[in-house]
Amino acid sequence: MTESKMVISVDAMGGDNSPRAVIEGLAIAAKKHPDIRFIVFGDTAKVNPIFQQFPILEKVCELRHSAEMVHNEDKPSSVIRNRNTSMFMAIDAVKKGEAQAVVSAGNTGALMAISKLTLKTITKIHRPAIVSIMPHRYGRYVMLDLGANTECDAINLAEFAFMGNILAKRALGIARPRVALLNIGSEEMKGKDEIKQAAQMIKNSKLDIDFIGYIEPHEISNGLADVIVADGFTGNIALKSIEGTAKQITRMIKDCIKGSVLAKFGLLFMLPALVKLKKTMDPRQYNGAMFVGLNGLSVKSHGGADAYSFSCAVDNAAKLVRQNFVPTIREEIEKVDFDELQAVLYDLY
Amino acid sequence: MTESKMVISVDAMGGDNSPRAVIEGLAIAAKKHPDIRFIVFGDTAKVNPIFQQFPILEKVCELRHSAEMVHNEDKPSSVIRNRNTSMFMAIDAVKKGEAQAVVSAGNTGALMAISKLTLKTITKIHRPAIVSIMPHRYGRYVMLDLGANTECDAINLAEFAFMGNILAKRALGIARPRVALLNIGSEEMKGKDEIKQAAQMIKNSKLDIDFIGYIEPHEISNGLADVIVADGFTGNIALKSIEGTAKQITRMIKDCIKGSVLAKFGLLFMLPALVKLKKTMDPRQYNGAMFVGLNGLSVKSHGGADAYSFSCAVDNAAKLVRQNFVPTIREEIEKVDFDELQAVLYDLY
Repeated sequence: MTESKMVISVDAMGGDNSPRAVIEGLAIAAKKHPDIRFIVFGDTAKVNPIFQQFPILEKVCELRHSAEMVHNEDKPSSVIRNRNTSMFMAIDAVKKGEAQAVVSAGNTGALMAISKLTLKTITKIHRPAIVSIMPHRYGRYVMLDLGANTECDAINLAEFAFMGNILAKRALGIARPRVALLNIGSEEMKGKDEIKQAAQMIKNSKLDIDFIGYIEPHEISNGLADVIVADGFTGNIALKSIEGTAKQITRMIKDCIKGSVLAKFGLLFMLPALVKLKKTMDPRQYNGAMFVGLNGLSVKSHGGADAYSFSCAVDNAAKLVRQNFVPTIREEIEKVDFDELQAVLYDLY
Repeated sequence: MTESKMVISVDAMGGDNSPRAVIEGLAIAAKKHPDIRFIVFGDTAKVNPIFQQFPILEKVCELRHSAEMVHNEDKPSSVIRNRNTSMFMAIDAVKKGEAQAVVSAGNTGALMAISKLTLKTITKIHRPAIVSIMPHRYGRYVMLDLGANTECDAINLAEFAFMGNILAKRALGIARPRVALLNIGSEEMKGKDEIKQAAQMIKNSKLDIDFIGYIEPHEISNGLADVIVADGFTGNIALKSIEGTAKQITRMIKDCIKGSVLAKFGLLFMLPALVKLKKTMDPRQYNGAMFVGLNGLSVKSHGGADAYSFSCAVDNAAKLVRQNFVPTIREEIEKVDFDELQAVLYDLY
């Protein structure tokens, strides 16, 4: 491995379909990104046989044995004490500077806990957040927090807005992202206190953000905002509601067509158009939620990811490494006077 | 009007398409329910011309003039002081016993505020909730609170569970509804304190509820629960996320078919199957959110409802009147020792 190349460390044991989906996913990613090297952590007895089926991986991967793994039911408080899991070792490689990002399909709470402990939160940021890039009618948007923090105060929300803004600039290439707070109404008086306070805070602070106010969940798909900010509980509820409904409707349409011979015949003519649509809608390509606010890039793949889906999470990680996301966010934060946010809050109340 | 018939009072001035959609909707409802009489409140100068286009209404409607109306931007605190609006008068008719239910497509906050003030909350219930009946894969479910209470404590949630349980029995005919709390994980430790406390409360109390624990939003459509309980903020976020995604996907499929001649041809063969699907999915038929926990039935139609949609809200109101929903809920509540819930909470902490 030459040192000049991008290196991504990978937890081969995380997720429902590990290590097969992970290794297969790396093979897809390796074809797409010949310039990336991978350090893969896992039980070599399980990983090696699959590994050998993909000759492309031989040149670009370094396999490292990890005796243990994080399980889905493991609590964050226990996983942070075990340095021998594939997840811990993969994250640690980022801390040591061996890799620029880590990708894991394992337990979200564990990944967040170890990432926080190991990579540490960026100075001035109170809490990291989970962020994802999702599709709306006319493009894509950034949404955070998707579940790292069940309860958030106004300052947390303002910090999320700040970090989401930088991510939208970098990852979506939007020069001046429109940032909105997720709420149940668009009027100023609507919603919870912390949301109202965060709105005042962002508006009255010197944060250089194009803050457009509140957005309601049913407006998200209309592409009115590029960055959508919520506490982790609300963001997670919205995310899972969106995912669940998308699945339900797709399934209902499938069931309906299956039940009719005539409809099946009609489907033949529609296939070319539908294939295109399916490609746009395919949730797998949006796989790879990032933890922002840490001194290192930690990317969470969906636990149920298949190989293609896992490769998309790697794509996401690679993109942010190329765009210097973590150093940029750190630089931008240094310029900001976050104490001013607190002062704005005091002025308001 | 003979006194033995069911009477529903109607706010003709509420909603984006009022009074036309309301009056047309009543004509549809009148055809369906020849046994219902309506007292319609509104500006007669505006209502009368439309009214005369539907001869069926003449026999079953009584028009009453109201000089004023509630506007979308009116604040709850101001609308409760004006007894001359069509909304206030329509709700007041329920209080006076002239009608058994009221239906309005007006401002939700105003409808809730006037309904609470006029009809009063049922003794022992701390807060009324907004509830709706929605479709899942195998049938329908009840979800509450959809926005009446931004912040809720564990007792509020337990009371919603209790009322939702009765509604599912009555409106959905489910002998023993499965009741779940909406949360971001299924494990006991997940979520906010009030949700965890409510779970313990329901489990350890003598409430006769088939409590199945937590449900995550993406599991709702799989029909795992008949009653889904959340605080008003979370419920509203989930509801609007579901509605927005359903619209987005339907629109994406339409756009995709429109863009291809071949697909349009194929669509011809699919139409019979799709018409059936559209009927099941048509959100208009689920129109009519109810306020539960009040001494009277107040039904909120979607503000953007068309005539058919408004008639569905009337259907919903009629169904619950026939099933004696309000008296039943009051009787059931009388049997319950709600203080015990509080005691359960003290025992736990």
